[in-house]
Amino acid sequence: MKRYEALAADIAASIGRGTLRPGDRLPSVRQASASRGVSPATVFEAYYLLEARGLVEARPRSGYYVARRASAAALEPQQRSQPDGEARPVAISELVFEVVASTMSRAVVPLGSAFPSPRLFPLARLGRATAAAVTHLDPWSTVDDLTPGNAALRHQIALRYLLDGAQVGPDEILVTNGAMEALNLCLAAVCAPGDTVLVESPCFYACLQALERLGLKAVEVATDPREGIDLDALDAAIVRHAPRACWLMTRFQNPLGSSMDEAKARALVALVSRHRLPLIEDDVYGELYSGSRRPPAAKAFDREGWVMHCSSFSKTLAPGYRIGWVAPGRFLHAVARHKLALSLATSVPAQLGLARYLERGSYERHLRGLRRTLQAQREAYIEAIGRAFPAGTRVSRPAGGYFLWVEMPARVDALDLHRELMAEGVSLAPGPMFSASRSFAHHLRINAGHPLDAPAAAAVQRLGRAVARRARASTAR
Amino acid sequence: MKRYEALAADIAASIGRGTLRPGDRLPSVRQASASRGVSPATVFEAYYLLEARGLVEARPRSGYYVARRASAAALEPQQRSQPDGEARPVAISELVFEVVASTMSRAVVPLGSAFPSPRLFPLARLGRATAAAVTHLDPWSTVDDLTPGNAALRHQIALRYLLDGAQVGPDEILVTNGAMEALNLCLAAVCAPGDTVLVESPCFYACLQALERLGLKAVEVATDPREGIDLDALDAAIVRHAPRACWLMTRFQNPLGSSMDEAKARALVALVSRHRLPLIEDDVYGELYSGSRRPPAAKAFDREGWVMHCSSFSKTLAPGYRIGWVAPGRFLHAVARHKLALSLATSVPAQLGLARYLERGSYERHLRGLRRTLQAQREAYIEAIGRAFPAGTRVSRPAGGYFLWVEMPARVDALDLHRELMAEGVSLAPGPMFSASRSFAHHLRINAGHPLDAPAAAAVQRLGRAVARRARASTAR
Repeated sequence: MKRYEALAADIAASIGRGTLRPGDRLPSVRQASASRGVSPATVFEAYYLLEARGLVEARPRSGYYVARRASAAALEPQQRSQPDGEARPVAISELVFEVVASTMSRAVVPLGSAFPSPRLFPLARLGRATAAAVTHLDPWSTVDDLTPGNAALRHQIALRYLLDGAQVGPDEILVTNGAMEALNLCLAAVCAPGDTVLVESPCFYACLQALERLGLKAVEVATDPREGIDLDALDAAIVRHAPRACWLMTRFQNPLGSSMDEAKARALVALVSRHRLPLIEDDVYGELYSGSRRPPAAKAFDREGWVMHCSSFSKTLAPGYRIGWVAPGRFLHAVARHKLALSLATSVPAQLGLARYLERGSYERHLRGLRRTLQAQREAYIEAIGRAFPAGTRVSRPAGGYFLWVEMPARVDALDLHRELMAEGVSLAPGPMFSASRSFAHHLRINAGHPLDAPAAAAVQRLGRAVARRARASTAR
Repeated sequence: MKRYEALAADIAASIGRGTLRPGDRLPSVRQASASRGVSPATVFEAYYLLEARGLVEARPRSGYYVARRASAAALEPQQRSQPDGEARPVAISELVFEVVASTMSRAVVPLGSAFPSPRLFPLARLGRATAAAVTHLDPWSTVDDLTPGNAALRHQIALRYLLDGAQVGPDEILVTNGAMEALNLCLAAVCAPGDTVLVESPCFYACLQALERLGLKAVEVATDPREGIDLDALDAAIVRHAPRACWLMTRFQNPLGSSMDEAKARALVALVSRHRLPLIEDDVYGELYSGSRRPPAAKAFDREGWVMHCSSFSKTLAPGYRIGWVAPGRFLHAVARHKLALSLATSVPAQLGLARYLERGSYERHLRGLRRTLQAQREAYIEAIGRAFPAGTRVSRPAGGYFLWVEMPARVDALDLHRELMAEGVSLAPGPMFSASRSFAHHLRINAGHPLDAPAAAAVQRLGRAVARRARASTAR
């Protein structure tokens, strides 16, 4: 652990224990530098890190304060996961289908949903851009804009890469039917049935579904709840299993919310490049950071083309439009071939509408508002969970995205809880759906992408009571 | 062969030999009935069949005449294909990718393209419907209209089934990213890598690509150029290979243009149902018939749910929108699960736009015009090919769709021809791309979906000269 990380961990622990309370001012940089015997730059780094985690907030010309919402009621999950390291076929689809189907009604409180509220998006403005684009459609665009996708849209995506510090040109991008198709195409391009793929523990269930669909085996790799996949464990798994790909999220991982800092992202790319291992980087939450800096994508350090970077507009701008993309590095041709054979192309009206919207230049302003809203919603849910859930509950403090990872008292069965709450009109994403080995039996992913309105607040309270009852019952037994 | 089929074959042969010429009047039904010793109903059936094949045309209150455009210059292909019947892995993608990529420029004369001219579609009207739909988008539709797809659109699709004589309700339909995704989902739902699938000989290359992608083996089944797959050969292949699925087109098959009549379609469904074999029916050209009757889809006779019927709007209304669907019969749940894992959902703006267009009720009128245009274009290309190509060339006379299957003199190498013409800005679809065994070395599929304008006419002439040169050269050797 580096000095600034050690300092940040100390302060985080003080917040966790309640020594530092919401609203308390942190020592000034000069004070902390003197008292800890470290450079002011180290203190800055530590405070930045705490800010990125949502634990402290900077106030202009005043200093750093413990975030008001950083409730001490629930600590963060701290323990690195400990998967068994075995390769296994995946059989998760029935569980995922059951859970996902349960979220598809407006009447259900969507704590288990993977989508943020559709009201967070500029759908009217986007609709007008799409309307203008399709009303004056060049008939030939219905042929030209098939694979690899509309040129104007790929240009706009390339500009986003530039802002993000990655060198990816329009010709290196393929537009897809959402990031899900992009990820499936990447797997299909580099794997054959029976091959092994390394994944995080826990990992996004759609990754497991894709492995199952393609007849691939999963090896779960130890993952830190704050900093993402463990690189030593990853290295060891590459040597042991000779996998054909690694699939992970470097930023605001689903479900943990973990992110890598620059040094780690660089080390990750160096590691996979050394092993000539394709890295499928699922980065759909990368734009949804809080604070003043965002962590980098691994793609930013990809010099040799081993990183297949996938993202979409579904979580940032245009849910339902189903426009994603992939920058597959050295696998561009193979992925394009699979796209042609799988779905030929991506819907042209949606591509044209998005290209026009992005050209008009209001995306950045929309994103700033969205980031603030999601941060506020995360904090509200963290506080509500802290109040409603029994002692011993831990809740993640992600610096971006909109998922919270909740570690409940041991032996509270998340699958039972899901079925109980579903009967009461509340969806949940139980921990085992994020693991090929069905681990994380007493974990939940909570969606903070919807406002904590009265029904949602009531649902969190009801959920907390159900958890407390189960925790007591298991203690009594 | 039934009586009416025998009568129709006799008349077709007379047309082919030139005994009956374009514009000649056929014997009246009473005359033919008396002279052949068959019932008037049999004569009617025979004349209907010839009309459906485009060989004769009915004139109101006058009788039947040999179609003006039914040039005798090039006979129809007659010989049933004779595949070797072996199961083999598929490796066709590189060839298909090369050919398809060659068609993706406006500057190329699209004889090898799979798309009709984008100018044949009411894109302005469709654009206005889409514009209205997205401008007043209910934000929740971006969540509700994911899998299985927008309810209003599925209702409209169900109404089309009703017109087509099939009983398929909205809840039995899943909206997909074009028919290509539907077909891939069907295969994935019923097959595992290494399994065997029966296909036509020749068959649509995208079917072969999908088999290759999924690690499946193909068995090509003998297919008649007019009447489609041979049911006895199909039965034998089922017994011999224990396949997991059969994929075919019952109407205006790509590339042959063959169609089944009602008796054969019924027999097909009975056959697969008896063997409990999933039948993937690719039916994207079913709406594009000429004449007064269209052949039925196999789905119309599917009582036990073994037919997985796939279609789309890409060839009839909305190229580039990428909206297809599948009615997967008893495999509904499995296909839905794969759709969720593969691409989650289908673009909502395109779905809403199509639903609104279809509700407005002008689709039927558009289709009537489109069918007439495509018939006229087919006839123009048939005549141009008959004039430009050397003796010994045969050209199909499909009663629908927009593909012509051209059998050139033996030893004219279609792949060489494709490369020669590509260098001159003319794309072709060479026969071997329609076969896992790379058969049909001297065959081409010609796209008659574009008007035979001056560049297209010049391309056909240039193509004909190149074929003639090669035919002479191979004779001389």
